[in-house]
Amino acid sequence: MKVLEERIRREGQILSDTVLKVDSFLNHQVDTGLALEIGKEFGRIFGGRPITKVLTIEASGIQFAMAASIALGVPFLYAKKKKVVTLSEQVYSAPVHSFTRQESYQISISQKYLGPGDKVLIVDDFLATGAALVGLVDIVREAGAELLGVGAVIEKSFQEGRGLLEDMGVEVHSLARISAMAPGEVHFIDNEESIKESASC
Amino acid sequence: MKVLEERIRREGQILSDTVLKVDSFLNHQVDTGLALEIGKEFGRIFGGRPITKVLTIEASGIQFAMAASIALGVPFLYAKKKKVVTLSEQVYSAPVHSFTRQESYQISISQKYLGPGDKVLIVDDFLATGAALVGLVDIVREAGAELLGVGAVIEKSFQEGRGLLEDMGVEVHSLARISAMAPGEVHFIDNEESIKESASC
Repeated sequence: MKVLEERIRREGQILSDTVLKVDSFLNHQVDTGLALEIGKEFGRIFGGRPITKVLTIEASGIQFAMAASIALGVPFLYAKKKKVVTLSEQVYSAPVHSFTRQESYQISISQKYLGPGDKVLIVDDFLATGAALVGLVDIVREAGAELLGVGAVIEKSFQEGRGLLEDMGVEVHSLARISAMAPGEVHFIDNEESIKESASC
Repeated sequence: MKVLEERIRREGQILSDTVLKVDSFLNHQVDTGLALEIGKEFGRIFGGRPITKVLTIEASGIQFAMAASIALGVPFLYAKKKKVVTLSEQVYSAPVHSFTRQESYQISISQKYLGPGDKVLIVDDFLATGAALVGLVDIVREAGAELLGVGAVIEKSFQEGRGLLEDMGVEVHSLARISAMAPGEVHFIDNEESIKESASC
């Protein structure tokens, strides 16, 4: 998604070869117009599938899940992060280890809102190590729902997340795929190109 | 907002005379259509003011800040909750004590995204004790920005939040104002009525 790549080039702060801050327009201050365009792009990519629910994790996935859910015309659901799972109701839960923050937490979803009838699109802001997204995929499977794809706004393609998800049989689409970065420079994988290449294999 | 009050009557789970769960349509699973209507209502109420930014707190304020920001055509910004404030950058922060969860945390906003030029609308899902919203008001004032109002989706009018905010000179509008509740019943303050009454004083 060219407009997103250009915005990352212009406003993203690359703090190291793995840390990219996009908090001026994506995940602290949010350019709502861009978020809605991101939702439309997910709608273009996944709109042909019979999705019944968009799933994400609080907090920074919410704006993109909402944008996708506007485009697809379905509700969205966000997993909560908790140190301890509440026992007051039945939940699906999965452990997640954040490598960035060096901490572990539990993500959970009420069993009332996800079940065998649901056809799910998972959306998140970043795909890097894939820890949180793998947790969401586990929850979708535990719920007996059908997973129709994962959409990430930004993918750090040099990290293992995409590989982990593809090994689980999950189809992944990211709107900006970073192949490498360092302070002052960022390189994107050309999505069109990679589609052409994989088509010719 | 009648459609919201009806939805609370139909789907809200009143667990005690202070605890209302609305996680089937507002703050876990989200009915995006209703969230957009809520945004439009905030737009109707506050649209005549020169708002430059909508401000909320992660996580469950995000969908309503986004909806308001779509209606008003401005970006939104969400405060982060942290146990310890990061020292890697300059932030405005305020302590918040959650009476529901019996825990204290720090909310913070990067100084880059809020300043004297900003005219702010604060939006959140609930106004009850007002703890989080008072923290946000403190941050807006610390930043030297101008606060043009607070919009809450649901207000528990029998708790002290509105009074605290009004004592700070803040104008508060809530879309559903609960005067009293108990398992199986919920009573709303008629917003039109209360506007009429205050106009005739």
